[in-house]
Amino acid sequence: MKLYDLELSGNCYKVRLFAALAGIPLELIPVDFLDGEHKRPPLIDLNPWGQLPILEDEGVVLRDSQAILVYLASKYGGETWLPKDPAGLAEVVQWLSTSANEIQNGPGAARLVDKFGYAIDKEDTIGRSARILPLIDDHLARHRWLALDRPTIADCAVMPYVALAPEGAVSLQTYPHIRQWIGRMKELPGFVPMPGV
Amino acid sequence: MKLYDLELSGNCYKVRLFAALAGIPLELIPVDFLDGEHKRPPLIDLNPWGQLPILEDEGVVLRDSQAILVYLASKYGGETWLPKDPAGLAEVVQWLSTSANEIQNGPGAARLVDKFGYAIDKEDTIGRSARILPLIDDHLARHRWLALDRPTIADCAVMPYVALAPEGAVSLQTYPHIRQWIGRMKELPGFVPMPGV
Repeated sequence: MKLYDLELSGNCYKVRLFAALAGIPLELIPVDFLDGEHKRPPLIDLNPWGQLPILEDEGVVLRDSQAILVYLASKYGGETWLPKDPAGLAEVVQWLSTSANEIQNGPGAARLVDKFGYAIDKEDTIGRSARILPLIDDHLARHRWLALDRPTIADCAVMPYVALAPEGAVSLQTYPHIRQWIGRMKELPGFVPMPGV
Repeated sequence: MKLYDLELSGNCYKVRLFAALAGIPLELIPVDFLDGEHKRPPLIDLNPWGQLPILEDEGVVLRDSQAILVYLASKYGGETWLPKDPAGLAEVVQWLSTSANEIQNGPGAARLVDKFGYAIDKEDTIGRSARILPLIDDHLARHRWLALDRPTIADCAVMPYVALAPEGAVSLQTYPHIRQWIGRMKELPGFVPMPGV
């Protein structure tokens, strides 16, 4: 199973992290992002969105880190990471949407500006971060994990760009429950870091 | 089963549309959005995000339109709308992420500016729309439906804010395959419209 990977991408890290926690072997294929390898064949044919990560497994090709987590969890990870019952599944999916939207466009985008020079409105990313992070901190004041009172792919999807927020000058100092949750993630058996986490 | 609903919300419409297509009865509870009913108790206790829709069913409370679609499909809709096999499930989830991020922040946000006066950078929403709509149009040049060669909750999640794009001055004239796909959606048995679609 191949993961077309960029070490500094939080979206790629979501997949590397979950695979490590769930004990799923991945063959990492480093992509020359700066040279635009993901924007031309053969990678652009695998993912017309022109983004990383891309997963390739027995003829299945997937873009989107959330979808890759769902695939790996439901095929190899077991129900502890992604339940099949409708209410449990939907509770996790709520956080996949939060990851894809509020986190990606908040702390995720703030980091893209500061660390990689993306032409994104920094003020907008700060505003979005200031709206979503208190909601997550408040949730984590009452729950040890984002969903289902246990580690799931929800945590693997949301944690990376939250933990990387300081690289976009988004401080986590005023979010103690988020910092404790990141600490709990780091204590999970099999946890792997990435630069900045 | 209660859906706290706003008629003009494309996110609420995703749920109303899918429920109609799948024959799932919903009790619609209209929310006084302009008066901020969703920002104070009891609704803010159901959804601390302060957003609509909210679904309440036998003690299960869900925010996020994508998660609600997943819940309804997996509990009441059957595998035709959301398969259980990992590859099929993940193929649908790819589009749920696209709905939550690129569509919400592209044509969805452009409409919020023009129709409801939201203080969002209109140029940014136009740029995001111009990046995602060609990708979707190209996909639909080769596929009748977004995922799995049949209607799924992927179509119900993505179609509303794409069809409403002209309300944000995002034209669909140069996206013929998108327009044909919207036409196919409208021909599905049970289809219900909303103002602007």
